[in-house]
Amino acid sequence: MPPLRSWFNIPRGSHFSLANIPFGIISTPSSKTPRVAVAIGDHALDLEVFAANNGFSALSTIQPHQAVFSQASLNDFAALGRPIHSVVRKYIQSIFVQDTPYPEVLQTNAALQKQALFPLKEIKTHLPFRIGDYTDFFAGMNHAYTCGVLFRGPTTALQPNYKHLPVGYHGRASSVVVSGTPIRRPNGQILQNPSAERKVPVFSPCKKLDIELELGAFVCKSNPQGEPVPIGEAEESLFGVVLMNDWSARDIQAWEYVPLGPFNAKNFGTSISAWVVLAEALEPFKTKAMENDEQVLPYLQEKEEKSVYDIKLQVDLKTRSGASSTMTKTNAKNLVWSFPQMLAHHTITGCPMQPGDLLGSGTISGTTSSEMGSLLEQSENGKISVKLSGGEERKFLEDGDEVRISGVCGSDEEALVGFGECVGRIEPAHELKL
Amino acid sequence: MPPLRSWFNIPRGSHFSLANIPFGIISTPSSKTPRVAVAIGDHALDLEVFAANNGFSALSTIQPHQAVFSQASLNDFAALGRPIHSVVRKYIQSIFVQDTPYPEVLQTNAALQKQALFPLKEIKTHLPFRIGDYTDFFAGMNHAYTCGVLFRGPTTALQPNYKHLPVGYHGRASSVVVSGTPIRRPNGQILQNPSAERKVPVFSPCKKLDIELELGAFVCKSNPQGEPVPIGEAEESLFGVVLMNDWSARDIQAWEYVPLGPFNAKNFGTSISAWVVLAEALEPFKTKAMENDEQVLPYLQEKEEKSVYDIKLQVDLKTRSGASSTMTKTNAKNLVWSFPQMLAHHTITGCPMQPGDLLGSGTISGTTSSEMGSLLEQSENGKISVKLSGGEERKFLEDGDEVRISGVCGSDEEALVGFGECVGRIEPAHELKL
Repeated sequence: MPPLRSWFNIPRGSHFSLANIPFGIISTPSSKTPRVAVAIGDHALDLEVFAANNGFSALSTIQPHQAVFSQASLNDFAALGRPIHSVVRKYIQSIFVQDTPYPEVLQTNAALQKQALFPLKEIKTHLPFRIGDYTDFFAGMNHAYTCGVLFRGPTTALQPNYKHLPVGYHGRASSVVVSGTPIRRPNGQILQNPSAERKVPVFSPCKKLDIELELGAFVCKSNPQGEPVPIGEAEESLFGVVLMNDWSARDIQAWEYVPLGPFNAKNFGTSISAWVVLAEALEPFKTKAMENDEQVLPYLQEKEEKSVYDIKLQVDLKTRSGASSTMTKTNAKNLVWSFPQMLAHHTITGCPMQPGDLLGSGTISGTTSSEMGSLLEQSENGKISVKLSGGEERKFLEDGDEVRISGVCGSDEEALVGFGECVGRIEPAHELKL
Repeated sequence: MPPLRSWFNIPRGSHFSLANIPFGIISTPSSKTPRVAVAIGDHALDLEVFAANNGFSALSTIQPHQAVFSQASLNDFAALGRPIHSVVRKYIQSIFVQDTPYPEVLQTNAALQKQALFPLKEIKTHLPFRIGDYTDFFAGMNHAYTCGVLFRGPTTALQPNYKHLPVGYHGRASSVVVSGTPIRRPNGQILQNPSAERKVPVFSPCKKLDIELELGAFVCKSNPQGEPVPIGEAEESLFGVVLMNDWSARDIQAWEYVPLGPFNAKNFGTSISAWVVLAEALEPFKTKAMENDEQVLPYLQEKEEKSVYDIKLQVDLKTRSGASSTMTKTNAKNLVWSFPQMLAHHTITGCPMQPGDLLGSGTISGTTSSEMGSLLEQSENGKISVKLSGGEERKFLEDGDEVRISGVCGSDEEALVGFGECVGRIEPAHELKL
């Protein structure tokens, strides 16, 4: 299929081609109230202003719902359901396409262009959803295997449950932040000498601060408590996908996590990209998940062969010196469980989901060092140094380090479906005042 | 101090004496919109109606904030802060006290009494807070020890971190429900033969459905991300306390929980009592926590010797036969960590808290079987049967079982500070339709 061309200037190589139309929350210097927008090329289209100026005049289905575009989150828009997301996305494509049937709406409406289109570099993006609950999974099998080898050796690297269910845990919703938000290095309890007989922790800034390269999926549909979402209907509950960096304090985690799992090691910050790529825009890039040689139970069996996404992912690390190095290149298909499987598993107990709930994939890694989505894996838990450009090296993150995750689908420079980036910079730990 | 007597009929033995004044969310047959109320004796005082009819005319501090009483949750009232909660509680006490300085407000105002006072048995209570995040701790040291003995034996019963930090994990906020809500038995993956070499789970309704007797504390103050709440200020962040039953699927948990902790075993339902007892009302019942023979780090050291509550707790189990048995009698002082310590630990990484966040204490147990707050402990993980009245017995919960937790402070029948009850009945598991 040839790419959709636009009358609007969408630069070649833009993540936000006409094939994409991702949704986000913006504010502008002249209007600080956050509201809904889509990204298109180097610009954001302010949907509140667009709607208020008859932008949706040719789309009767959305008119009763236009108030959703004035909200400070995508929750209400998401709750309208996948068919409405699709109609809105396709309508916006039709507004921007070269031979638009509606030139009067925007193409020849210079006043509305001026009011509703903002260069991305002049706007502020906000957290796209009011997140009710955030759940993080562990579906990156290469990551699970590599970590298992580090901590338990190769014969028991994957736990017995790993291929039977999408292992996951409840995360902290309140500390999910939008790309660009600085991340403060956490303080906490650390066991300096784990092999000592008497185990007494010290209080310290985290010394093993790490990233986790993940995808996040937002839920758009609620299910009543007690009523599971069948695997065949789970896809309809997924609004769209973002890049995610689930910052992790490995040394805090090692001491605290027995027996109830990671807690403070994960609750100081999780960064997500600002623009949510609709599930529909990712549909052409579906591919097969990693092979699972166990027979999964029927409630996890998908009809579709292709259920994960072929997304090229990259992590770049820029140090205080200003030098930037590519740390990781991998692909989002390195998952053994899909988001529909995660959702079906999550709700099999009757757990109620709500629009705005966030599911994290778990760390996405390939099998070689330069494909691994965490420093834990690359440095073998601090045993070896990862070489950066300019002669620097890292075992874990240092203060001032800026981590930039990017992700994109497709290879046609005029039809990329990309996520933009997910960026965070490490600020030094606070000295504790008691 | 002699009890406060009221011109209003507060039955002897009521949990909701004048010494209490707990807050909740109610609706009534004639007005289905949930709003704020306090419980007083056998009645609820509708604070929306009370405020609208000049009930707060003598309390100028609250007048700019009266809209909080028309909300469907206590979040906005809680966010006003502890000094305001105190002023409102004391003012309501002054309205109801025998020699009220304000008789015209309610005592001699028959019209307002009729409009604003509802018998508790005629109203519906709702979830008191819109819960942002829910965290469950593990601070009941007897419970932790007994479970540790069951799974690992007495020498390593408590993990090395247990006395150094309040172990906790992020729970599922969306499945917290108010007392009275039925609980559907969850389905899930269960490993029937854990000692088999090849570990293959089956799909089954949970066969080890259990209760956890806990307290829950609601947060009323936010802290910015990156900024810990010092232990000395943590008390000011606590709004009040409820009874909690953290329903648990022990067999699902045993298979799923390695390595990231409990997930589906806990996310199908957590019940809390409807009336939130203000921290101020519990102040006279503060007592010393269980002794911790480790020196805790400074950020967890409390100035106050007394930091947990002396609350008599009871669990009753009523089966389908109608027979009721007291399963547990214990006391909330069986905690080794206080809520301020939990909050200080939770935020030491900079994790942001928000009004409406819920902290669970972990299961509260004494040392003998009839003092234990879970069937896991009482039945030694299903090895022995717990005798009920009428010749029945239980290892874990059966369909139709109704669990009733109650809790009360004090012994003066005219000045009890009680929690009412936290009730839930087990409904049979769904047959799964795929």
